[in-house]
Amino acid sequence: MGNTQVLCAASVEESVPPFLRNSGKGWVTAEYGMLPRSTLTRTEREGSRGRGRGRSQEIQRLIGRSLRAVSDLEKLGERTIVIDCDVLQADGGTRCASVTGGFVALALAVNWLLKQKLIAENPLQEYVAAVSVGRVGGQNLLDLDYAEDSQAEVDCNVVMTAGGKFVEIQGSAEHAPFGKQDLDEMLALAWRGIQELVRWQKRALAQKK
Amino acid sequence: MGNTQVLCAASVEESVPPFLRNSGKGWVTAEYGMLPRSTLTRTEREGSRGRGRGRSQEIQRLIGRSLRAVSDLEKLGERTIVIDCDVLQADGGTRCASVTGGFVALALAVNWLLKQKLIAENPLQEYVAAVSVGRVGGQNLLDLDYAEDSQAEVDCNVVMTAGGKFVEIQGSAEHAPFGKQDLDEMLALAWRGIQELVRWQKRALAQKK
Amino acid sequence: MGNTQVLCAASVEESVPPFLRNSGKGWVTAEYGMLPRSTLTRTEREGSRGRGRGRSQEIQRLIGRSLRAVSDLEKLGERTIVIDCDVLQADGGTRCASVTGGFVALALAVNWLLKQKLIAENPLQEYVAAVSVGRVGGQNLLDLDYAEDSQAEVDCNVVMTAGGKFVEIQGSAEHAPFGKQDLDEMLALAWRGIQELVRWQKRALAQKK
Amino acid sequence: MGNTQVLCAASVEESVPPFLRNSGKGWVTAEYGMLPRSTLTRTEREGSRGRGRGRSQEIQRLIGRSLRAVSDLEKLGERTIVIDCDVLQADGGTRCASVTGGFVALALAVNWLLKQKLIAENPLQEYVAAVSVGRVGGQNLLDLDYAEDSQAEVDCNVVMTAGGKFVEIQGSAEHAPFGKQDLDEMLALAWRGIQELVRWQKRALAQKK
Amino acid sequence: MGNTQVLCAASVEESVPPFLRNSGKGWVTAEYGMLPRSTLTRTEREGSRGRGRGRSQEIQRLIGRSLRAVSDLEKLGERTIVIDCDVLQADGGTRCASVTGGFVALALAVNWLLKQKLIAENPLQEYVAAVSVGRVGGQNLLDLDYAEDSQAEVDCNVVMTAGGKFVEIQGSAEHAPFGKQDLDEMLALAWRGIQELVRWQKRALAQKK
Amino acid sequence: MGNTQVLCAASVEESVPPFLRNSGKGWVTAEYGMLPRSTLTRTEREGSRGRGRGRSQEIQRLIGRSLRAVSDLEKLGERTIVIDCDVLQADGGTRCASVTGGFVALALAVNWLLKQKLIAENPLQEYVAAVSVGRVGGQNLLDLDYAEDSQAEVDCNVVMTAGGKFVEIQGSAEHAPFGKQDLDEMLALAWRGIQELVRWQKRALAQKK
Repeated sequence: MGNTQVLCAASVEESVPPFLRNSGKGWVTAEYGMLPRSTLTRTEREGSRGRGRGRSQEIQRLIGRSLRAVSDLEKLGERTIVIDCDVLQADGGTRCASVTGGFVALALAVNWLLKQKLIAENPLQEYVAAVSVGRVGGQNLLDLDYAEDSQAEVDCNVVMTAGGKFVEIQGSAEHAPFGKQDLDEMLALAWRGIQELVRWQKRALAQKK
Repeated sequence: MGNTQVLCAASVEESVPPFLRNSGKGWVTAEYGMLPRSTLTRTEREGSRGRGRGRSQEIQRLIGRSLRAVSDLEKLGERTIVIDCDVLQADGGTRCASVTGGFVALALAVNWLLKQKLIAENPLQEYVAAVSVGRVGGQNLLDLDYAEDSQAEVDCNVVMTAGGKFVEIQGSAEHAPFGKQDLDEMLALAWRGIQELVRWQKRALAQKK
Repeated sequence: MGNTQVLCAASVEESVPPFLRNSGKGWVTAEYGMLPRSTLTRTEREGSRGRGRGRSQEIQRLIGRSLRAVSDLEKLGERTIVIDCDVLQADGGTRCASVTGGFVALALAVNWLLKQKLIAENPLQEYVAAVSVGRVGGQNLLDLDYAEDSQAEVDCNVVMTAGGKFVEIQGSAEHAPFGKQDLDEMLALAWRGIQELVRWQKRALAQKK
Repeated sequence: MGNTQVLCAASVEESVPPFLRNSGKGWVTAEYGMLPRSTLTRTEREGSRGRGRGRSQEIQRLIGRSLRAVSDLEKLGERTIVIDCDVLQADGGTRCASVTGGFVALALAVNWLLKQKLIAENPLQEYVAAVSVGRVGGQNLLDLDYAEDSQAEVDCNVVMTAGGKFVEIQGSAEHAPFGKQDLDEMLALAWRGIQELVRWQKRALAQKK
Repeated sequence: MGNTQVLCAASVEESVPPFLRNSGKGWVTAEYGMLPRSTLTRTEREGSRGRGRGRSQEIQRLIGRSLRAVSDLEKLGERTIVIDCDVLQADGGTRCASVTGGFVALALAVNWLLKQKLIAENPLQEYVAAVSVGRVGGQNLLDLDYAEDSQAEVDCNVVMTAGGKFVEIQGSAEHAPFGKQDLDEMLALAWRGIQELVRWQKRALAQKK
Repeated sequence: MGNTQVLCAASVEESVPPFLRNSGKGWVTAEYGMLPRSTLTRTEREGSRGRGRGRSQEIQRLIGRSLRAVSDLEKLGERTIVIDCDVLQADGGTRCASVTGGFVALALAVNWLLKQKLIAENPLQEYVAAVSVGRVGGQNLLDLDYAEDSQAEVDCNVVMTAGGKFVEIQGSAEHAPFGKQDLDEMLALAWRGIQELVRWQKRALAQKK
């Protein structure tokens, strides 16, 4: 995704949030952050006075939901996998890169759990990846970089499984409401991007074996 | 929207955020909150330790973007209209009710600005409303109440203009990824709901004249 | 109380604060908040940076103390009743309206506990209500509205039982210290107001039966 | 006031809060804090997580109002006097000690302003002091210490001028509502205490000359 | 240490931080604060918006480490001694005064524990004290006051035991890096100061017997 | 420094902190953070509830002071260079790595300012680097890794210039106070390490030309 770099790491914790205690089910959650100098001009460090926390929380909830959508939480057992997505360099599409890379980190953690015989069956049911599409200058584009994103009329993040089903669609038209035809075209573009991203995820996982 | 009640109020402030100063443009923004006893069991008051702030911020950004999408900010002049959406009673669909009711509050404020001759032209280009659709027990439904929402396989909030264009689509499938056919059916349902909501908005505004 | 509107809700929670655990006693507490647009000009939303929290906390402590003063906490058993007082519209006297309306909410919750046979005896020993008195332009007045309140020389909130005993007196003379004679006259006025408020409380409770 | 020790300091700042800018008027405000080991058992340091801030803010607002009630803010000119009241040792009555000692600090600051010819006339119109009264074991008492205060049925803080006028009355009966006769007796006791405190204030100021 | 006054108090708490539970070991920790009017011009009260917390935390960690370095935590048993160091008046060297006075408070608490037979053996292995040294105007000086400290080229805080061993050295040269010869001379000066401070500590403890 | 990885970035901002406005002088400051998964077991993300902020602030103040000690702030002009040091992987010595790498980032920013002709003369007077030394198992060691650091009796961070002068010495003996001879040996070791680090800094800067 252009020059975007996101460091994705998975941590296995032998506990679950309160609402899952004694349910036999596990949890997958995510945290997202940007380094202050990941952006073209420096952004203030998060956490100092809650600035920017709203956007980060929105993104980390999206990542968590996307990864849980392909996870059988019962097969995971009562443990939590935390996915940390930290943006080292931002050039558009950081939330999509986080979902896509976060899935790879999650799969690596799951492989480790299987190898350690801590779980018996793979809880991951399908590959999941995310890509941005949008309309810029009247044209529908796949995988917007920062320059395109900042002038887009429509901006849409699509999370899909390798089997072509939708997990999340977040489309937003701050500058120009869009019709059904445009939506259809953008979703078709997204599907093309997702297929390529899944190929890259498979390659990354194959290298780690 | 079922038993949901949201108090929507518009306030005109004669200032704009820093990034718009001396641009001649105005701004429309929103704040969203839930009273602790708006829910079936009491929720902790927001603000005490930042709980629930993530969800609220996500919602208020959605409301703001939706209203700005139909506003010509240059016609507004350098002022801000703040829309406060406070949930008195929650029975599903509070964010959709906030967009729909927030538009009415915004329109009333704009009418007041026109009457006061503070602005010359109406900055509102179209009516905008929002509705939830989702899949519950394998069926696609319009306007989910709390009981339906909490067991939905797919949950989708759609913001549309009176002219049938999309402003925001936020579809999320935590439990079961969905295909294109389901998406199309849900969006068709949403459009039916939007048309009815716009009729109600018009009735509400007519009463105030 | 003029155009003041406060939404009062009672919630029963089956737990008590740490200092009462295993004491067999219950607790009555209150929380107070103002919607940003409850005031003539919009006030910033509470909780964002702790603004206004001082005043709110002072008021919710007053409400809690007033309601506990007429409650036999042993008869309540080890549970907490939380009274939420949220100001929808403020026209002076919001703290008095909160005590007066909060008592009605408390009584409704107690009736429900009795009907569910969760408690055997009514813990409420007396009706309690609150009213403001003050001196404006040299005259002692009952139940000040916002305009009177903001120019009052003396401002006094009085919480009394239906039997005419004092629960709280908070008199404050920022602009002109006052003598004993004025105090006596203001307290007599307050007593007149309290008697009327108790009649209204009884009517409200009768309707709910 | 028993073993209570409060360090009171006045600071003159050549600025006023925003609502007084260009009004020609000054401001008197107070801050109040307790050292963690001022109490019999250590209390957590304020500010770490906002604990105890509610009570402190309530007290510092009382101190500020009491001191402003005897100050002609126009004679002070556009400057602020901040009174810091820090409790080194707490044995009941810290808020009363803070008002009483805070007035001495304020008077010293005013004397310095007069000597520096920064102001032409003394803005202090009267001496002001505060004392606690209460009912303990059925008896009305003056100046409660910590042991008495913690078992009081009625607890009342009274701020009065040297001329016998009331500035603040904060009476609270958490355990047993009280009648008018008791109130009158407690206020008479308070007046006796105030007169003695004013004598001590005069002595303290005389020593500093 | 010039006109610096720090109130040091020790509190014994029958609990330990989580990482020491069931270890049989105790803990010694410190908290440090400055009253707003301890400085020549008033500083904002700590805790209001986290200002100045960084410096205070740094200092309280130094005090804690210094006192633990001479404490046998096993002899203390599973309890915590909290040392509160509150600066009433600041004229340079407040962190050194806090370590030196904090040790006296700690020793008094230990004596009380021994007298109460709560511990069998004295956990304090040595006296510990702290002093500042620095280079001002090209000269190495012992115990800098506020005026010297604010123009020092090198500022060094040294914590030593009565036996002449180092516990902490914190030397900082913001304006002019310094050579080994200067370091040696400053450390020799510090040792002279420490010996005198230990004599004062012994005198203070002797008076309390 | 072992497996420690710190991302250091410099940002030039055309403004200075309030106390330097209109002084003609610039400022160099630093911020320090650790990614949650930089440590062997995941640490909670900073900023959520202020955890770990104390340690981070202490470190960033050290980095800032160290870099300012070799900077002629007048030659920098009224601008600020912010150095962000973010730990991607932590294996001991992260604060030393931050000073050493932060200097390289600072030098790159200065070279850019010179090339852009925004400043006329190089404000950097000398190379500066930092290294840890300590006593582990009775032996004095250079550049402790995480395993050594966590069992060190003495832990000392030394910041020195290429010319062999001291900028900062932070020595701490939580477990065993140390004598002058040990200090001298540790400082000699540090000097050896600093010389090697400066060679690496020169190599890094040479590559960027």
